[in-house]
Amino acid sequence: MSDTTGRLATPTATPLHDRDFRGFASDNNSGVHPRILEALAAANGGHQIAYGGDAYTAHLREILRAQFGADSQVYPVFNGTGANVVALDLMTQRWDAVVCARSAHINVDECGAPEKMAGIKLLPLDTPDGKLTPDLIDTVAWGYGDEHHAQPTVLSVTQSTELGTVYSVKELAALVDHAHGKGMVVHLDGARLANAAAALDLPLRALTSDIGVDVVSLGGTKNGCLGAEAVLVLEPKAVSRPPFVRKLNAQLASKMRFASAQLIALLEHDLWRETAGHANEMATALANAVRGIDGVHLTREPEANAVFAILPAQVTPRVQARYPFYLWDEASGEVRWMCSFDTTLADIAGFADALREELARA
Amino acid sequence: MSDTTGRLATPTATPLHDRDFRGFASDNNSGVHPRILEALAAANGGHQIAYGGDAYTAHLREILRAQFGADSQVYPVFNGTGANVVALDLMTQRWDAVVCARSAHINVDECGAPEKMAGIKLLPLDTPDGKLTPDLIDTVAWGYGDEHHAQPTVLSVTQSTELGTVYSVKELAALVDHAHGKGMVVHLDGARLANAAAALDLPLRALTSDIGVDVVSLGGTKNGCLGAEAVLVLEPKAVSRPPFVRKLNAQLASKMRFASAQLIALLEHDLWRETAGHANEMATALANAVRGIDGVHLTREPEANAVFAILPAQVTPRVQARYPFYLWDEASGEVRWMCSFDTTLADIAGFADALREELARA
Amino acid sequence: MSDTTGRLATPTATPLHDRDFRGFASDNNSGVHPRILEALAAANGGHQIAYGGDAYTAHLREILRAQFGADSQVYPVFNGTGANVVALDLMTQRWDAVVCARSAHINVDECGAPEKMAGIKLLPLDTPDGKLTPDLIDTVAWGYGDEHHAQPTVLSVTQSTELGTVYSVKELAALVDHAHGKGMVVHLDGARLANAAAALDLPLRALTSDIGVDVVSLGGTKNGCLGAEAVLVLEPKAVSRPPFVRKLNAQLASKMRFASAQLIALLEHDLWRETAGHANEMATALANAVRGIDGVHLTREPEANAVFAILPAQVTPRVQARYPFYLWDEASGEVRWMCSFDTTLADIAGFADALREELARA
Amino acid sequence: MSDTTGRLATPTATPLHDRDFRGFASDNNSGVHPRILEALAAANGGHQIAYGGDAYTAHLREILRAQFGADSQVYPVFNGTGANVVALDLMTQRWDAVVCARSAHINVDECGAPEKMAGIKLLPLDTPDGKLTPDLIDTVAWGYGDEHHAQPTVLSVTQSTELGTVYSVKELAALVDHAHGKGMVVHLDGARLANAAAALDLPLRALTSDIGVDVVSLGGTKNGCLGAEAVLVLEPKAVSRPPFVRKLNAQLASKMRFASAQLIALLEHDLWRETAGHANEMATALANAVRGIDGVHLTREPEANAVFAILPAQVTPRVQARYPFYLWDEASGEVRWMCSFDTTLADIAGFADALREELARA
Repeated sequence: MSDTTGRLATPTATPLHDRDFRGFASDNNSGVHPRILEALAAANGGHQIAYGGDAYTAHLREILRAQFGADSQVYPVFNGTGANVVALDLMTQRWDAVVCARSAHINVDECGAPEKMAGIKLLPLDTPDGKLTPDLIDTVAWGYGDEHHAQPTVLSVTQSTELGTVYSVKELAALVDHAHGKGMVVHLDGARLANAAAALDLPLRALTSDIGVDVVSLGGTKNGCLGAEAVLVLEPKAVSRPPFVRKLNAQLASKMRFASAQLIALLEHDLWRETAGHANEMATALANAVRGIDGVHLTREPEANAVFAILPAQVTPRVQARYPFYLWDEASGEVRWMCSFDTTLADIAGFADALREELARA
Repeated sequence: MSDTTGRLATPTATPLHDRDFRGFASDNNSGVHPRILEALAAANGGHQIAYGGDAYTAHLREILRAQFGADSQVYPVFNGTGANVVALDLMTQRWDAVVCARSAHINVDECGAPEKMAGIKLLPLDTPDGKLTPDLIDTVAWGYGDEHHAQPTVLSVTQSTELGTVYSVKELAALVDHAHGKGMVVHLDGARLANAAAALDLPLRALTSDIGVDVVSLGGTKNGCLGAEAVLVLEPKAVSRPPFVRKLNAQLASKMRFASAQLIALLEHDLWRETAGHANEMATALANAVRGIDGVHLTREPEANAVFAILPAQVTPRVQARYPFYLWDEASGEVRWMCSFDTTLADIAGFADALREELARA
Repeated sequence: MSDTTGRLATPTATPLHDRDFRGFASDNNSGVHPRILEALAAANGGHQIAYGGDAYTAHLREILRAQFGADSQVYPVFNGTGANVVALDLMTQRWDAVVCARSAHINVDECGAPEKMAGIKLLPLDTPDGKLTPDLIDTVAWGYGDEHHAQPTVLSVTQSTELGTVYSVKELAALVDHAHGKGMVVHLDGARLANAAAALDLPLRALTSDIGVDVVSLGGTKNGCLGAEAVLVLEPKAVSRPPFVRKLNAQLASKMRFASAQLIALLEHDLWRETAGHANEMATALANAVRGIDGVHLTREPEANAVFAILPAQVTPRVQARYPFYLWDEASGEVRWMCSFDTTLADIAGFADALREELARA
Repeated sequence: MSDTTGRLATPTATPLHDRDFRGFASDNNSGVHPRILEALAAANGGHQIAYGGDAYTAHLREILRAQFGADSQVYPVFNGTGANVVALDLMTQRWDAVVCARSAHINVDECGAPEKMAGIKLLPLDTPDGKLTPDLIDTVAWGYGDEHHAQPTVLSVTQSTELGTVYSVKELAALVDHAHGKGMVVHLDGARLANAAAALDLPLRALTSDIGVDVVSLGGTKNGCLGAEAVLVLEPKAVSRPPFVRKLNAQLASKMRFASAQLIALLEHDLWRETAGHANEMATALANAVRGIDGVHLTREPEANAVFAILPAQVTPRVQARYPFYLWDEASGEVRWMCSFDTTLADIAGFADALREELARA
């Protein structure tokens, strides 16, 4: 393409950061998996119809129909908040409400986007481990037919949860069946669905289409993409006009071929399982590496790619200065360490050393 | 990075499309400029704090402060609709209204996103050539202080316009001054600002900060990026809490380093001018190539990268089958041909041949 | 009821205003028609189920079914803006848009309530006399099926218009048929429908259900009620769950018996025609009374209860100081004089005298 | 006024309901207090500037400034949901959130109006007796400055609560101080503030302006008005442009003189205390009348005008068929009996008899 401008030789892009350093703050602090970067390059060049009329989006549709069933529909979007808002907007009318865990991303991490972009009412529930139960749902899912009461017609569950826990297939299926039995439809926030499926050694469909989930926010970014999520509609009757709802929420990419190419790279040949499985394994390795350290108290065993522990309050900032991570609960001193597709055993060893050193100095 | 998973070797990504074919449907049918793709690769690897805490976003801020003034603030977002909604949301309170051309992207091409995401009322005005004037503004910008009347406090102008026209600096400055004189603030939809600046042979600031524009939707995607736009705040007093407004409108990227890296590649060494200037030149070349063809009526001379013409109604679909482009006005038969950073003279020659052939068959 | 509290004797309510003075500012500057006040008193006492489960609302439903057809549904609301927002919200999905005159109340007099409460996009059209035509509608009602384009699925017409003009049955039916032919549904803002029907000497149904209007904002307040409007659904297929939409827009009255009692008093025995017809006659009388006065230029003949005229700029405030009315167009000096159900010939004579005196002083 | 139309003589309004029957479903099943009906009649006649430019609204402002302080501002609105939405909309920006009890009217009884009309995010908290505490607030009021987190800047408390409980001045002041200490502003939903003030034998200001409440939803309808509530701004710095926010939420009455006349009648000479105090006394009388009945279990002592009790499940519908009231909790069989300004000792005696008879038949 140098012939189109003739002036491309200089300057060459140069990195502004240390490409060998990795911390434990979040899986989205990582970059792009090399195979996904290759896929972006392969999708480049020539012209393709914008807004989804391209060959890559068409191929992505085929792949997902093969994996999730012939009725499935996939709508790439930009980010997790966008996927969740579009999904919930698709599933609700003006008078509806959405039951979720208080710890759900839609409730605590999206600055109110569901309410503010789409007027969606949430009904958050306290759940000690981030996991909903049928009984909990019943405490707020009532008042059907009463015009004074926003109608609880959607259940939103997160798999794996914000607390790093994983619903079993049985638990998830029980929630879906309970919701359907009440006439509700089910949304699954799957920003880290791959981590759950890898942890349970199951295909993605076992946690979604096989058990009757209606709509999924399918995550790619946290699992090695540059930026690619999708709203995956498994039950078309549960939604209304997805193309419009995606567009009016500003989640329609013009050069969609690149979002679709990322998702193809992730999903077509099970790269998702490699990357998420690796992140999970690293979390187990990290837990094992720090388990014996005096002053570190693991608050629960890692089920996916997150490790939660309590550290002495004065030690946390000193370790954070060396390896970024988040203080999860100021009151208890609980911290969160996330592993990623690119976390290495060497990273873990370095981190464990830093932890030991800073605890020793305490 | 193959050491992290050990299973990355196969399969290699392969293109699914013809990488040598280019049409005239839209500048966003193009792919990514090679220097921008390089920049993405250079920004990869290692961990960087998500949501804007990375080295690339920091560097982008410096570059734009140097170019647009020390008070400028830049907020990368995903797409043009997102940039416009975030910008207008930043500039309005619940009771405000936005004056714009009826042909503005915010009014006709965003499925109502400003109204639907953010409750923003638009006051669209008919403008034969897509360009507003002070007198036109006055026809709807009144009723200040009257609680029955949404308050017209924002003027939104598009440069270059949806009709391919370009405001002169003098025209634009007169609009800004008129708006400021009425107590309004000014938003510039700059999805194709680069094309206007290249056409006028001016720096970007000459059309924005130098003349008092308050907030810009700064486009990258149509000009060679994979997907990168930004809300550029030039007058901080005109806006409220941009980080929150970006987030609550689902326009905050987690791996922001890649959006910022694209914008750096575009803006730091004036790549924007090469790419937009080339697209403009190709539009002139296209106009010249088809001007003499019997049955083609150019409806206006190209000022940026768009060519508008009237074709016989039966010919249009036959040419579209060979080179995608849009029918702009069904009533008159007017069509739009867009040139892009990667349009070649050979593309134009091929298109002109196709046009001649299909007209001959008519 | 003094037996319930035993302490009701003092003090007695006393008027704080001149109960014999009437101006020409608006029909809603008037008070309550005595028969409607009687109806409020008759509906008082005892307990009735709140929110519409009362005997008066049930009777109102029967009356309107008899007048407008067995499928009609009536939903009392608080005010005209509320009626319009609820009606349009009932008729639209998230991706829809509403075609209206630029001078429509929903566009200029509701502080953006449709956009701000319900995210409804308006497509306002310039109409010299406040009246839409099929051709005008076609200029914005296009782009169906295109996700980039808010879908123009609702036509909103106002009868009588904000400019005091009245659509003939033929004109209105042509608009309805044209809209239906395009797949649109039709809303009629009938804040002053009674004035139009009285002017045309027709029943209300001749301008609504008989010609296929789908939903009406039925006005009572401007025509002698204390405060009572209703959303009247004539085509149930055009709307979704009115009880919920009314409630979520804060337009559900608890003591609805009193709203319904007002509407019964207005509609059951054609009081609406007496009151609106009287207001219309007074407008004609006012036009005749001022027609010959030097310095008064009637800009159009009154068709309902509004008179529009141009006065010398310096005279207007002096007359306003004696009889409140509104300056309609600052540029031309056009003023609006509204007549009401309680306007008297003596009021008109006094006003004409004041006009003559102030013009003589000019 | 018969002289204006000359045709008013027939027919006379006749009641459609039993004016001597009263149940225990809700205080808004009652009608209008005779003194308030008189006030409506006194305010009638002549013309008054619409939308609040009338003598009654001016007088209401004076009365409330005298009662609540010179900085107070009063904005009459239509209903309780409207008052709450306008109040919260006034106090929030797009990124804010409101802390409230899960049982709060804004959370469970408004069909999501705060979220749906105004995009307001609620943070509901479980509170066994409907009363918030500083510690409960702290569980959700965090994350200030973090763009991912809707900012908990408003505390909304209800006095008396939906559970019929009453905050002491000390409890309420502690909540206000705690909220202010965190930089939050305080909204008080006072649909039944009069009942709380009467129960505590305090002036209204003791529970609002005296302790630093910023904005009050001041109720009239449940306490004898036909339909009149107000947004009472006590701290002008806590709000933005109330006239616009009221209008854009469709809560601006045209014939506002009648809303203001009701509120004057209620507030000027302490009628509110008579009516609310009477309702409270009747609740105590009702509790005493049923306390000894076998099969009736009072779940808490009445603090305001509500009585809560558990009845055998099969008895409830039989009693409801004779005296309407609400089943409050299907699981436990708890029912709610509300007393009103017009409840009589005879009503209570009749109800207690019915209860005894139906329990005997069980």
